[in-house]
Amino acid sequence: MNKIITISREFGSGGRELGRRIANELGFAYYDKEIVKEISKRTPFSEDYVKNVMDNNPVPLFPIHTGQSFSPMSNAIFEQNMQIYDEQTKLIRELANKSSCVIVGRCADYILEDMNPYRIFVYATMSAKIARCRSREEEGHEFLTDKKFAKKIKKIDKGRAKYYNFFTSQVWGDRENYDLMVNTTSRDIKHLAETIAEGIKKI
Amino acid sequence: MNKIITISREFGSGGRELGRRIANELGFAYYDKEIVKEISKRTPFSEDYVKNVMDNNPVPLFPIHTGQSFSPMSNAIFEQNMQIYDEQTKLIRELANKSSCVIVGRCADYILEDMNPYRIFVYATMSAKIARCRSREEEGHEFLTDKKFAKKIKKIDKGRAKYYNFFTSQVWGDRENYDLMVNTTSRDIKHLAETIAEGIKKI
Repeated sequence: MNKIITISREFGSGGRELGRRIANELGFAYYDKEIVKEISKRTPFSEDYVKNVMDNNPVPLFPIHTGQSFSPMSNAIFEQNMQIYDEQTKLIRELANKSSCVIVGRCADYILEDMNPYRIFVYATMSAKIARCRSREEEGHEFLTDKKFAKKIKKIDKGRAKYYNFFTSQVWGDRENYDLMVNTTSRDIKHLAETIAEGIKKI
Repeated sequence: MNKIITISREFGSGGRELGRRIANELGFAYYDKEIVKEISKRTPFSEDYVKNVMDNNPVPLFPIHTGQSFSPMSNAIFEQNMQIYDEQTKLIRELANKSSCVIVGRCADYILEDMNPYRIFVYATMSAKIARCRSREEEGHEFLTDKKFAKKIKKIDKGRAKYYNFFTSQVWGDRENYDLMVNTTSRDIKHLAETIAEGIKKI
């Protein structure tokens, strides 16, 4: 049976790098942004749109009972988002059945529950996350104060949590939903990846 | 500088066994019940009394403002409990300064904060914890239904959490207070200990 490792992560914690390195150590496939690309191919939606749905609250905010019928526009958006989630579920199951792999985000831990994935959650202190983001030297970061950066990071994680909580009925970041939770603050991600990969070989 | 590893754990999760094995792997000292014994020696209190204070809410429930003075009895108990915590703090710092070690529970992660301990939290699903407790074959366990067992485990952990939260002003089990959180459900504790010990060697 294929070994599946899922990575959930706080923004800026180095979860992606950790996942990629674990995949390299074990010779497993690695899926992250590829999922967005593939879903976009399989649906009428652009990559940006798919990414946006995954990064944000999946349910448009509209009143359930207004005394009138639902807004047709909101309903349409809801249907689109559900279509994306359905495609995502199918795709992730296909990938997991193809070979052993590491999958980052996208509720893969929940979608593949019956395949008994090794579920890792990656986190760090806010100051460590800000430092990591700044070191990436992406455009625009240099203009953000630490306070604004922290606000941005919190907002992104709030979106991830909402998306996860909505589709899984579980709470993102709650220890009971993971096998291992790793704080990357002050740690060498390469060493962490080597150690975790060795541990997974023993399972 | 000495390497310090602290273990916090849900009751029945195998945290103690994990801690002991990590200490063995690394050739570190291991402190658990020895702390209760030593505090009892250094104070007028019995081992049972010290253990009871550590396992339960450290603050007797009495109203802060009653319009009258504090109950002298409650005050006395409060003073005793604080005396135990002070002794515990001193002892844990002595142990940590003596040699590299693994310390289980007793707010050691917080007390030794300035020594940068590697802080591990160990947990498991309730059914895994019940199964582990039953396998210990301690007297009386065979008469408990799973439901009653779960209640007992929750009560013990509630006591641990209260004790920790009171003295540290942090939340017991919150990921931000730990470097690694390990779910032992369906895992071989021996393998986990080997892997974690290897990881700690790299720090």
